[in-house]
Amino acid sequence: MLIVKKFGGSSVADKERIFNVAQRCIEDYKKGHDVVVVLSAMGKTTDHLLAQAAEINPAASKRELDMLLVTGEQVSVALMAMAMQALGVNAISLNAHQVMMHTNSAYGTAKLRRIDSMRIRNELDAGKIVVITGFQGVNRKDDMTTLGRGGSDTTAVAIAAALHADKCEIYTDVDGVYTADPRIVPNARKLPEVSYSEMLEFATLGAKVLHNRSVELAKKYGVELIVRSSMNHEEGTIVKEDVKLMERMLVSGVAADENTARISVIGLKDTPGIAFRIFNTLAKHNINIDIILQSVGRDGTKDISFTVAKTDLQDALELIRENLTSFTAERYEYEEDVAKVSIIGAGMTSNPGVAARMFEALSNSNINIKMISTSEIRITVLIDQADVKRAMRAVHDAFDLGAE
Amino acid sequence: MLIVKKFGGSSVADKERIFNVAQRCIEDYKKGHDVVVVLSAMGKTTDHLLAQAAEINPAASKRELDMLLVTGEQVSVALMAMAMQALGVNAISLNAHQVMMHTNSAYGTAKLRRIDSMRIRNELDAGKIVVITGFQGVNRKDDMTTLGRGGSDTTAVAIAAALHADKCEIYTDVDGVYTADPRIVPNARKLPEVSYSEMLEFATLGAKVLHNRSVELAKKYGVELIVRSSMNHEEGTIVKEDVKLMERMLVSGVAADENTARISVIGLKDTPGIAFRIFNTLAKHNINIDIILQSVGRDGTKDISFTVAKTDLQDALELIRENLTSFTAERYEYEEDVAKVSIIGAGMTSNPGVAARMFEALSNSNINIKMISTSEIRITVLIDQADVKRAMRAVHDAFDLGAE
Repeated sequence: MLIVKKFGGSSVADKERIFNVAQRCIEDYKKGHDVVVVLSAMGKTTDHLLAQAAEINPAASKRELDMLLVTGEQVSVALMAMAMQALGVNAISLNAHQVMMHTNSAYGTAKLRRIDSMRIRNELDAGKIVVITGFQGVNRKDDMTTLGRGGSDTTAVAIAAALHADKCEIYTDVDGVYTADPRIVPNARKLPEVSYSEMLEFATLGAKVLHNRSVELAKKYGVELIVRSSMNHEEGTIVKEDVKLMERMLVSGVAADENTARISVIGLKDTPGIAFRIFNTLAKHNINIDIILQSVGRDGTKDISFTVAKTDLQDALELIRENLTSFTAERYEYEEDVAKVSIIGAGMTSNPGVAARMFEALSNSNINIKMISTSEIRITVLIDQADVKRAMRAVHDAFDLGAE
Repeated sequence: MLIVKKFGGSSVADKERIFNVAQRCIEDYKKGHDVVVVLSAMGKTTDHLLAQAAEINPAASKRELDMLLVTGEQVSVALMAMAMQALGVNAISLNAHQVMMHTNSAYGTAKLRRIDSMRIRNELDAGKIVVITGFQGVNRKDDMTTLGRGGSDTTAVAIAAALHADKCEIYTDVDGVYTADPRIVPNARKLPEVSYSEMLEFATLGAKVLHNRSVELAKKYGVELIVRSSMNHEEGTIVKEDVKLMERMLVSGVAADENTARISVIGLKDTPGIAFRIFNTLAKHNINIDIILQSVGRDGTKDISFTVAKTDLQDALELIRENLTSFTAERYEYEEDVAKVSIIGAGMTSNPGVAARMFEALSNSNINIKMISTSEIRITVLIDQADVKRAMRAVHDAFDLGAE
């Protein structure tokens, strides 16, 4: 079997953890598997390098920042190969240049274009564990690039795709994907499997186990992901395309996102193009809009409500204030103490009763629903932030998601 | 003019020094020159990385050690380019991969084979200061290598040769090459010029301004070197092929080397091949032999004396003890408290009186000469270590080397 294993920065933060990771990789290697390891920079290295750069030049070019940052992963992979050698196993580290991980030239947020697999295959054929720098690439000019948030996960998935790996294990500090955050819902259960689409919804809703980007790439190339912990040997959660519906529930899990705020623009003229004007203005300033609700207002006007990330709220309000007249609005309102709670499940597509059951559970708990949004595999409600935990538990129970 | 400037690790050890170096480079850039900068790793970075590696695996492969070490210079060049950008100048950093500095595969002690100049020239043509990682290269397998001791000086000279640079400035913590160590000979004078050969003799004798390897390379490709300080704007010393004899003295300077010890092997059978047997044994164990003296012993035997580095003394003595019988020797003696004092000067070749004047100066100071060795441009004597400073001053005076 060819296994790609990815470990984040906290898993290689010091000597002990490096040896822990080395041991785990060697376990698979000794079973006769080909093992490719993708690593992030150790612990806080990237933050430290960014701070050094900021001290010298807060407006440093992104090209030079990437040239600086990529050293972090190179240190990790060299030390990891040394640790494996210390444990008697032949290992070799490779950086983005040596593998040839081609990206575009968007320094800091580069997109992988193509990964040459020859060097990796040659080293595997020579009986070595291959340890590769995550998060980085090389552009057409031979310059170093970094992939931005979730970069190392993306590297691991891309390498797994390029090598047609049998599996791609993503090691995190949790041991899988849960039906809900166990800190909030104590009887939450670890899911043995979720589909790519469900995983994407989980990630969007703040369950930051995997970055969306890596899941999208895994989906595109059919790479089977396994999310598991570097601290124990639990099975983890498999993320793949076809999850057997026979053995699973309608709903996979409940997730919440408290980084949300509601804005209402009130008394808009009821003519075409008004909604477009508002959302276009916000989009131009990189403000993403989530749930949208349009309703009839007084005297033939209309009201539009929508949610934005809390972190975007002030920018959004400023834009609305500036453009109130051009939006033909009378006034606006906003609400910060709100949150989204969602149920996610590939099984709900063909089951019309799911939404009703969720709303009933919330109603029985006296939780008021402010807005609703649905996709094929997700139902999201906006509620008071104060009700989030109660809502999660109620919904979790209603769908019988907990462990026995 | 195209100028290559090389700065060592202490010159870029912190933010202030980085900006100091950036300013110096920008001065030349603003005069309209093309500027290429070669940097070592910041301060103690390389030592720190080596310590990290030793903690993980004291027997780490040299390939992985080099993979680790090269990150040090990459951090330096990225931060330097950022500093130059902060000062409003267009700058770009390049590592060994981006330049393509080809070396052989002797990890840790790699030899440069060829430097591609296209990328550097393109960046210079685009009006940028080009900041390049010293000390490192890439082998045929695309693996990172390091050049070993004096590596960054060697990189600078090789780049100057590849680009046909007008000059190659090596910035150190002294402001040039002196007629003697000013800490020992207070009226020592800075030399405006020395020849490559003289510089090589100075370096061999412990005046560690430039590493031999970079001087040899400069000599081979006719690269004019300038040794100067990064802390002041003094002119420095030019190292080149043709130093005008008209304007200069017979002797350029006096140097001492206290890392030396004398061994005598006594009572050897007077047959051919005995000396060869001794020196071959030592050479096989990488022990370099310096001054050699053979003399007639008692009863038709002979004695051979030679010097080795103090750091090699114990190894050498052990080898001699082990092989005493096969060397046909009666016994051996050794002396640790000795030192070499040399005069160096391209002018002495055609002046037979030079050696006599040196010996006279030492004799007048009651300093006993134990051994003598000469080359075309050097005369070396072995004396008691305790006499070194007096000897240097006496010889320095005898050749009138001091400043008026």
